[in-house]
Amino acid sequence: MTDTASALARLTDRLGPAAVLTGAEAMAPYAFDWRGIEESHPLAVLRPAATEQVADCVALCAQAGLALIPQGGNTGLVGGTVARRGQPAVLLNLGRMDRIRDVDALDFTLVAEAGCTLAAVQAAAEAVDRLFPLSLGSEGTCTLGGVLSTNAGGILTIRYGNARDLVLGLEVVLADGRVWNGLRRLRKDNTGYDLKHLFLGAEGTLGVVTAASVKLFPRPRQVETAFAAVPDPDAAIDLLARLRAAAGEAVTAFELLPRFAIDGAAAFLDRRFDPLAAPAPWYVLLELGGGMPGSALREAAEEALAEAAAAGTVLDATFAETGERRRQLWAIREGLPEIGRTLGGVVHHDVSVPVSRIPALIARGTAALEALIPGVRPYPFGHAGDGNIHFNVGRPETMPGKDFLARAGEVTALVHGIVRELGGSFSAEHGIGGRKAAELAAHKDPVELDLMRRIKRTLDPDGLMNPGKVLPP
Amino acid sequence: MTDTASALARLTDRLGPAAVLTGAEAMAPYAFDWRGIEESHPLAVLRPAATEQVADCVALCAQAGLALIPQGGNTGLVGGTVARRGQPAVLLNLGRMDRIRDVDALDFTLVAEAGCTLAAVQAAAEAVDRLFPLSLGSEGTCTLGGVLSTNAGGILTIRYGNARDLVLGLEVVLADGRVWNGLRRLRKDNTGYDLKHLFLGAEGTLGVVTAASVKLFPRPRQVETAFAAVPDPDAAIDLLARLRAAAGEAVTAFELLPRFAIDGAAAFLDRRFDPLAAPAPWYVLLELGGGMPGSALREAAEEALAEAAAAGTVLDATFAETGERRRQLWAIREGLPEIGRTLGGVVHHDVSVPVSRIPALIARGTAALEALIPGVRPYPFGHAGDGNIHFNVGRPETMPGKDFLARAGEVTALVHGIVRELGGSFSAEHGIGGRKAAELAAHKDPVELDLMRRIKRTLDPDGLMNPGKVLPP
Repeated sequence: MTDTASALARLTDRLGPAAVLTGAEAMAPYAFDWRGIEESHPLAVLRPAATEQVADCVALCAQAGLALIPQGGNTGLVGGTVARRGQPAVLLNLGRMDRIRDVDALDFTLVAEAGCTLAAVQAAAEAVDRLFPLSLGSEGTCTLGGVLSTNAGGILTIRYGNARDLVLGLEVVLADGRVWNGLRRLRKDNTGYDLKHLFLGAEGTLGVVTAASVKLFPRPRQVETAFAAVPDPDAAIDLLARLRAAAGEAVTAFELLPRFAIDGAAAFLDRRFDPLAAPAPWYVLLELGGGMPGSALREAAEEALAEAAAAGTVLDATFAETGERRRQLWAIREGLPEIGRTLGGVVHHDVSVPVSRIPALIARGTAALEALIPGVRPYPFGHAGDGNIHFNVGRPETMPGKDFLARAGEVTALVHGIVRELGGSFSAEHGIGGRKAAELAAHKDPVELDLMRRIKRTLDPDGLMNPGKVLPP
Repeated sequence: MTDTASALARLTDRLGPAAVLTGAEAMAPYAFDWRGIEESHPLAVLRPAATEQVADCVALCAQAGLALIPQGGNTGLVGGTVARRGQPAVLLNLGRMDRIRDVDALDFTLVAEAGCTLAAVQAAAEAVDRLFPLSLGSEGTCTLGGVLSTNAGGILTIRYGNARDLVLGLEVVLADGRVWNGLRRLRKDNTGYDLKHLFLGAEGTLGVVTAASVKLFPRPRQVETAFAAVPDPDAAIDLLARLRAAAGEAVTAFELLPRFAIDGAAAFLDRRFDPLAAPAPWYVLLELGGGMPGSALREAAEEALAEAAAAGTVLDATFAETGERRRQLWAIREGLPEIGRTLGGVVHHDVSVPVSRIPALIARGTAALEALIPGVRPYPFGHAGDGNIHFNVGRPETMPGKDFLARAGEVTALVHGIVRELGGSFSAEHGIGGRKAAELAAHKDPVELDLMRRIKRTLDPDGLMNPGKVLPP
């Protein structure tokens, strides 16, 4: 019996047959790439149900020289859980580790296992009148372990930070099979190096996150949602500063949208909805949330919008007076990925720059793309309050999708080059996975890259933890 | 000429004579232990004025086998910048690196060098109508590099987090003399491992922080300060939950104070001030801050206090109606360290537990101390909103200070033992330094301790970066 076969046999003994899946059909629900760019070919899919079982998986696979690819909801967009053909690797799917271990309303803390969906964590917090403020499109499917291992962002980052900022402690199975129990629930603890931040955002390349203790927050008692038309991205950034001056940290979302969000919904999704009377080139979908009931939020937002209108940086604006209207306004934002799927050829970019440089990014990127491929349809949008723009680029109407996608490399090199010149990041919230590892190695500061490689060698000397992801082989 | 002498000679050439201090008199302003517990005996004090000079110091000292002890304002309380007698070590004082490199009001970011005082950073933010929300007693003297290297906490942590939570990027001189320029100003960047959190809170044992880019916040437009009498610590935690339910994240400070804060000020500082009519065993000094003007904060606080009064968890309360009154209320809190200095013998503890366990910590700790040393005077107080209690213990009136301090080890072992049983930390915000390194090694989870040692060996293979601090020799 080969090492692999005997390792899987021993794991079947330990975990039970239902936890060790082999064969294309059984593995199909796990062994695919969300964006369909690569095929995934694991030797097996392991589905442990407890931390000790994860430790068994890591230890036995290490003995057999098998690479481990940890997997949450598999909703990542950078091929972070893809097993390359010929790679001696198994998927470690944590979906069965889905217990909420503890919720403490007085401490404002929650302890949950890696396989809990983000929605389940949100619900457990809400059940004790608390908020877990991480929110993204895939929250019904993505898992706590996944969003922490990729340091996910989302729509509330401007107010609550990224996933890593919400973590108090971690439980991690290390590459040698030992369990680090760092599940603290402390707001202040200065006893030694902060190890949790090494594993947060490491995409499973340094160890397997099996559980986390996270911060909860008071639930906002009032939410105000507004949709504002602005002449250009500069005006949007001006509006953001006015809003924060008037409403302070109550600004919980600030999304920049091009007119294409409305015209594209009409043209490609047959959704005809424009909340404002006259068309405008750009829009901001903004939301304010407050711990206290009362009208102060609305007044502050109206004051900022009025000042901006007087300064010519806001053309028109409307508030959502009902929950239904709020859903309609957010649907404009959420429609953009749907529109993208109808364009027959889109190159995606998940970039960030300092907030004040967003206008330069959009102006320079759009002009350079038009010069590179006349008729191309860029539609940059996203979390402007964090400097995070999804600079997506649709094929020219007249160019076949495959011809356009054949030039994806050129398009991305152009956009990412401008991002670098502006002091930005070519992966703001989606991470590196396997797809961006070569680019990371090519453009990272050599000192930082060397530090990363030394950390990797220190924590995973045999290189079996999700090899080839984040750092190229 | 010895290696040391030639290294110092070369450094004098590079940095200039004013930057290389030797001799007891010249070194006296730097070579002491703030708490006066240990003597400090560096071979020299280096005062570089630029990052490249810091790199020269690190490289030349490494060649000569000299240990480097980075130093900011030297206001730490755990002997973190003490050079032990006979230790071949030099102090690297960063006080001359005091430039604010950049302040950007639109980005809500600030870039400053390690030697800037915390007060200077706060002032630079305020000058553009922004808030840098780190605030502690020593802010006029402590430096940005110091508060980041020790992950300082302070009075606003409940709302804004610890020092590390305020950092976007770092510039660090590594143990091999290379400079890592990680001075990003991005809110979202998922390109690889988060290295900054390794150096934050590492107390100079992994490298020298020379500059940082930090987050700024909108300045609160309104502050409400109240002083509430409560029957016991349980009632204080109940009040905290009610306040957050009513005012959400507007709660910016929540300090628990024993009656000793008022009686002790009268007895030992000759300050007779009690803001409330009747004496109570415990008090809460609470503050709410909001981005928006208007009365919502006051109403929310009054509502929570009224509910708590009806439930019997608040006995009486008063709001500060003037800035002068606010200063008087805070003076009660700030008087406690002063009172301690008059007691002729105090054992200090900087501990944290989950917020809901503060009452158990205080009850069990007080009873056990009285059993250990009858007549002892514990006066636990501090940042209850973060679970951080300064569990300080004064000598019995009838026991000579030196006899009491001779038993400091027993007292601390008792308090820290209870803290461990409650899942807490024996160093919440002051760090480890040299003074708590042995205790860290004795009580840290062995897996975590091993990870820390491997990180140390990886980033500082020769062990010359502040050796003996955090991790014992």
